Amino acid sequence: MIFSQSEFEIRLNKIKSSMQKKDLDLIIITDPSNMNYTTGYDGWSFYVPQGVIISLDHNQPIWFGRMQDSKGAIITTFLKKENILGYPEDLIQDSPKHPYDFVTNFLKIKKWDTKNIGVEMDSYYYSAECHNRLITQCPNAKFYDANLLVNWVRLVKSNSEIKYMRDASILVQLGMQKAYDTIKPGVRQNQVSGQIQNTLISGNNEIGGEYSGLTTILASGISTSASHLTPTDRKFVNNEGTIIELSGVKNRYHCPMSRTVFIGKPDTQTIETMKITNEAFENSLKFVKPGNTANDVAVGFWNVLSKYGLEKDSRLGYSIGVGYPPDWGEHTFSIRKNDMTVLEPNITFHMIAGMWMDTWGIEISESICVTEKSYELFCNFPRELHLI
Amino acid sequence: MIFSQSEFEIRLNKIKSSMQKKDLDLIIITDPSNMNYTTGYDGWSFYVPQGVIISLDHNQPIWFGRMQDSKGAIITTFLKKENILGYPEDLIQDSPKHPYDFVTNFLKIKKWDTKNIGVEMDSYYYSAECHNRLITQCPNAKFYDANLLVNWVRLVKSNSEIKYMRDASILVQLGMQKAYDTIKPGVRQNQVSGQIQNTLISGNNEIGGEYSGLTTILASGISTSASHLTPTDRKFVNNEGTIIELSGVKNRYHCPMSRTVFIGKPDTQTIETMKITNEAFENSLKFVKPGNTANDVAVGFWNVLSKYGLEKDSRLGYSIGVGYPPDWGEHTFSIRKNDMTVLEPNITFHMIAGMWMDTWGIEISESICVTEKSYELFCNFPRELHLI
Repeated sequence: MIFSQSEFEIRLNKIKSSMQKKDLDLIIITDPSNMNYTTGYDGWSFYVPQGVIISLDHNQPIWFGRMQDSKGAIITTFLKKENILGYPEDLIQDSPKHPYDFVTNFLKIKKWDTKNIGVEMDSYYYSAECHNRLITQCPNAKFYDANLLVNWVRLVKSNSEIKYMRDASILVQLGMQKAYDTIKPGVRQNQVSGQIQNTLISGNNEIGGEYSGLTTILASGISTSASHLTPTDRKFVNNEGTIIELSGVKNRYHCPMSRTVFIGKPDTQTIETMKITNEAFENSLKFVKPGNTANDVAVGFWNVLSKYGLEKDSRLGYSIGVGYPPDWGEHTFSIRKNDMTVLEPNITFHMIAGMWMDTWGIEISESICVTEKSYELFCNFPRELHLI
Repeated sequence: MIFSQSEFEIRLNKIKSSMQKKDLDLIIITDPSNMNYTTGYDGWSFYVPQGVIISLDHNQPIWFGRMQDSKGAIITTFLKKENILGYPEDLIQDSPKHPYDFVTNFLKIKKWDTKNIGVEMDSYYYSAECHNRLITQCPNAKFYDANLLVNWVRLVKSNSEIKYMRDASILVQLGMQKAYDTIKPGVRQNQVSGQIQNTLISGNNEIGGEYSGLTTILASGISTSASHLTPTDRKFVNNEGTIIELSGVKNRYHCPMSRTVFIGKPDTQTIETMKITNEAFENSLKFVKPGNTANDVAVGFWNVLSKYGLEKDSRLGYSIGVGYPPDWGEHTFSIRKNDMTVLEPNITFHMIAGMWMDTWGIEISESICVTEKSYELFCNFPRELHLI
């Protein structure tokens, strides 16, 4: 196991305590990150319905998923075999049958179908149909929204979790350096992207990496005005900027980073915007310390932007940790004005200044760990516009 | 654009015709593959709510998504700007606000909130909360399940789509060969995986690839008994099998393949099972032709297994084409007994014999295109157990 049994027990106790406060007897979680956090489960099986049931009157979490994936649960989780439930293959993609018919049947067998049940209403892979099956087949249960209940428990990291993020930070710096070393006029974007993936996943002599919650974002020219475009056959050309956003991943813990490169001589607009963005970024960092709020950090950033008359509509950051596609964000707090979440030691977040303009854009970011007195950057990698 | 305007029009007409048959005035689609199929949209933005609205009384599809991603929609789709709707950033992960508040408001402005509306009840990224907002905020609309409506339109491929799958087949063969060339005792799994990713994405002199709907599955030893485990720091050792499943991707069109390698001298059980599986696979292929059903192909496979007393619970295959994480499958027909879908020319599917046993397993697969008279394999790559 990647974490000690006692670490999983601490997590479970926190979750059960949060459930009690919300008067929930049982929760069903489907976000793969939450499944991993509570059981250690790690497999790319979230393309079919699966989940983890946590009940106040049951010691361990209960994993459910497709029968053929239950072996993956035996291998990757600490759960006893009786807490790993594989549903039959004939429920897969064969409407009107559905895997949640199995789930509701199990709830009935356990006599849990009259309980107060929390579900992650807005989590990945909890489709409208999953919810529909639950509420129609368990009419005596009361359903409540337990969205982000587990995510908020994930907010403050243990030292073991921070350790994996540090491993990931080594990988992401190697990956970004590989981008810097391979971007050249005439080279295809996907040739660079392939080498970046190799670096992020092969790692170095000591550690290797994993697939990321988001794929590598790499876009040039006008595509830098958009935030989530991915590498194509397009070739790099002179006098064009490229934004790159990627993440190192270790044991599903992410350390993302974004930077901007420019081939040739950058225009004044790009240079100036990068300078202001860096100044705003530096200023916001001054407010990262325990006791301050996410809002404080945001204000530190936007105050500098305002001074120069620069605007940015999108948020400046978000909590990070365990991640599975389609995201590496934790969906708890955001670095933006009016988010009054109070920072604590071992809260980790990705602060990303994406400046997406009409026809061009730049990006810089840092993965940050709040410490006892202030903060630490996971990476040590210049934020300036990198010239090629 | 990757497809001609007329190809998009043909797709839209088929979808509208299917809507009419089901008495739907309007559908909201959220599956990223369906969004791509109907508009060309391509971006890793599906980690926030987004979708495409198709209305019988509106000429073009309407894209909606986060404001910062609307530029990606301008760049990658054929849609007029008035059909690209960006919702404000303050709706992102800031409960109780939600992006679907914007969607329902738009439906009201268009006076579409009294219509018969189809939603993809079980599609990726259509969460219970998205549905909840729609039905509570548009009480005068009638909602119907339009799950897989677009997916079924995608079933029979155009020649342009087949062309991209052929490109992807070149990539996947390069990728598998790279696995064969790099798996050695003492090498870490993720070192091999990194090189595979580089090959799949960098491609060759003519074409490069893209991220895949599923990550590369690579598992050794006891982990071959599970179906979806991914590469780790574990090193390859002698006298152990490894299953590999990966895909080439071109313009989001997938060509998957799986194979099994063994380092050292394989045991009799593995050799025998591979022999039987290959015989069953060959036999099932004889039934792949227009007019035959998916069931016919499945029976051809399981008849041979039965002869040898071998069992396999999981299905033998599924339709493929456009794909985004978390899947490359189309979710329409499956190759399994009692699936009476009739094969037609230019139907494409992934036939995968995953034999996941108690503590070991093997996998072989082919991506297949149904032709006028029979079928064509996209790849030309031996299916035998590859010995290292």
